[in-house]
Amino acid sequence: MAKHTIIFDKRPRILSTGTVAGPKECAGVVGKYVDKALADDMFGESTYEKAECKMLTYAIGKAIENAGMKEEDIDMMISGDLLNQIISASFAARDFDFPFLGVYGACSTMSESLALAAALIDAGYFKRIVAATGSHFSSAERQYRYPLELGNTRPPQSQWTVTGAGGTVVADGGSDIAVTGATFGKVVDFGITDVNNMGAAMAPAACDTILTHLRDTGREADYYDLIVTGDLGALGSRIVKDLTWEKGVDIQPNHVDCGEIVYNVIEDEFQGGSGAGCSAVVFSSYLYDKLKRREINRVLFAATGALLSTVSSGQGESIPCICHAVSIENVR
Amino acid sequence: MAKHTIIFDKRPRILSTGTVAGPKECAGVVGKYVDKALADDMFGESTYEKAECKMLTYAIGKAIENAGMKEEDIDMMISGDLLNQIISASFAARDFDFPFLGVYGACSTMSESLALAAALIDAGYFKRIVAATGSHFSSAERQYRYPLELGNTRPPQSQWTVTGAGGTVVADGGSDIAVTGATFGKVVDFGITDVNNMGAAMAPAACDTILTHLRDTGREADYYDLIVTGDLGALGSRIVKDLTWEKGVDIQPNHVDCGEIVYNVIEDEFQGGSGAGCSAVVFSSYLYDKLKRREINRVLFAATGALLSTVSSGQGESIPCICHAVSIENVR
Repeated sequence: MAKHTIIFDKRPRILSTGTVAGPKECAGVVGKYVDKALADDMFGESTYEKAECKMLTYAIGKAIENAGMKEEDIDMMISGDLLNQIISASFAARDFDFPFLGVYGACSTMSESLALAAALIDAGYFKRIVAATGSHFSSAERQYRYPLELGNTRPPQSQWTVTGAGGTVVADGGSDIAVTGATFGKVVDFGITDVNNMGAAMAPAACDTILTHLRDTGREADYYDLIVTGDLGALGSRIVKDLTWEKGVDIQPNHVDCGEIVYNVIEDEFQGGSGAGCSAVVFSSYLYDKLKRREINRVLFAATGALLSTVSSGQGESIPCICHAVSIENVR
Repeated sequence: MAKHTIIFDKRPRILSTGTVAGPKECAGVVGKYVDKALADDMFGESTYEKAECKMLTYAIGKAIENAGMKEEDIDMMISGDLLNQIISASFAARDFDFPFLGVYGACSTMSESLALAAALIDAGYFKRIVAATGSHFSSAERQYRYPLELGNTRPPQSQWTVTGAGGTVVADGGSDIAVTGATFGKVVDFGITDVNNMGAAMAPAACDTILTHLRDTGREADYYDLIVTGDLGALGSRIVKDLTWEKGVDIQPNHVDCGEIVYNVIEDEFQGGSGAGCSAVVFSSYLYDKLKRREINRVLFAATGALLSTVSSGQGESIPCICHAVSIENVR
C-alpha cells in the first residue's frame, strides 16, 4: 500500500498569517480576525481577476510582515488558485523576489501548500516558506459557471465562492504552533456529475484522507480538538460525517467545515462557502486565532478540492476530488 | 538573498521513463526512443482532451512497468499539464491508487515535478514517486488560441505544441542516473505581451535560473555535458544564449533546447516545439537514452513555463515566466 502520511520530526512552525476578505465574508465569522476587511470586493482594481490577485499578494505580504520579516527573509512561496493557469498565484509571485512553486489542488490548495511547505522545511532545505491561496466569487462564477450579468438562479445544493485570501509563513522555529504531519490524498471519484453539488462530490475524498490519516498515525478521531474540512458546505459535511460513521469512525463531535461556518446568515449562499479562499481565510484568521489563544490545541486541517473543469464536465466526465490533510498542534 | 538551490545528499535515482508521442513528433528525433509512437493523435478517444489524458496515463503506467514495478510499489505521483484545472493530470491520477500532488508550472512542469519528487525522496519521506506531464497540440491550440477549424495563419515567431507525454520513476536507489540538485526559479517578467512569442518571454527566466544554479553550486557552465532548456524554440534559444553571454557565462557550446530539436523538418512549426510534453518527451526518451548509454553524463535540465492565461492576456497583462532546473548525473 502506498505511503500517504509524513510525520515531521522537526515539527515546522507556523509563524504568522496574513488575511483579507470581502464584505460578505467579513459580515461572518472571520470579520473580527482578518487583517483587512474589504468594503469593496474590487479592491481598487478594474477586473475581478486583478482584485483576486491583489488579495493574494496582500495576504502574502501581510503574512511576511506579521512574522516581523522582510521579503528577503523568505526562501520560497508555494501557491495556486482556481483561475485558469493559476494566474492569481503566478502574478502575485511576480511581485516577490523569491522562488515560486505553483501548485493546483483546487479548493485543497491551502492544505496542499501547507503540507509541501512543512515538508521542504522539515527536510532542512529551506527555512521560511509562504503557503498561500485565495479566491474571488465573481472571477470564479464567470469562469466556472455563468456571467453574473445573466442573473442565473442558483440551485439549493450550490455554494458561494469566498472572496478572500490567506497566507501563512511556515518556518523552522519561532512559534509554538507546529505542522506535525501531512497526509497526501489520492483522487476519489464517486461519479457525481452535478457541478453545483461540490459538497457531495468532495465528501468521499475527505472521508478517505481523514480515515487514512487516522490509520497511518494510529490516532482516534478524538485526538483532535477539531477536524476541519475546507468547503464541503452543509450538505457535504453531513455526507462526510455519515461516510466516516459507516467506517466506524465518529467525527461528529469535533468536525467543523470552513464553508459551513463562514457565512453567518444564509441568503443566497445555500450550502455555505466554497473556493480555495474559504479554508485559507477561515484557517488563517479565525482558527489560527483560536490556536494562538490555546482554545484549541490539535487540529486536523483537511481541505478538499474538486478537480473538474468546464471542459471535463462538458465532455460528460464526473468530478474527481482530492483531500490533503495537515495536522497542526500546539507543541509547547 | 533567498536560497534557490538544493543539493540532494542521497542523490535520488531515475529508475525508468515511459513515453508516448504523436505522429508529427515521432517523425523527428524522439521517434526511435518513445515507448509508443501514435499513428493517430486521437489515441482512440473521442476528444483531444481525452487523448491528452490517455497519453499521460499511458506514460505513467509505462514508466512504472519499465521500472519493473507495479502500481502498489509507487508512493505518489506529481503531475500537472496545460489544460485548465490540469484535468489531464487529475483524471490520469483517478486511474491510480496512490496519492496525487497537482502542480502547475506550464511548460516547466517536467522539471518542477522532477525537482519535487527528488526532494521528497531525498528527505526520506517516500521511496518511489512518478513525475510526469504531457500536452496535445489540438487541445492546447483550442484552449489558448483559436479553434483549429478557423485555419488561422500562424506568425513566424510561433511554436507548435508537442503532442506527447513523458513520465519518470524517481526512487531511493536502483540506477546510476541521479537527480543531484534542484534550483527553484522565481517569476521573471520582461514585459513581453505577444502570446505567440513564448520563446522571447521565457528566455529571461531560463537565463535567471541557469545563472542562479551555477552561482549556487559554484560550477562553470562546462561542468555540464548539456544544458537543456524545455521549449524556448530557435528564437528563444538564441536569446538565452545572448542573455547568459552578456552576464559573462557562455552556454553556447553545450546548450540544447528540446523545442528546437524535437522536429526534424520545420514546416508549420516555425520556432520549433513547445508545451509541457515537449521537454517531458525529449528528456524522457532521447536524452534519457543518451544518459543510459553514457554518451552524456551531466545534464542541467531547465524547463521554462509561461504563466499566462487567455484572461490575463486579454486584460493587457504581460507574460510572467519561470524556470525550474534539475541537475541529473551519472554517478557510478
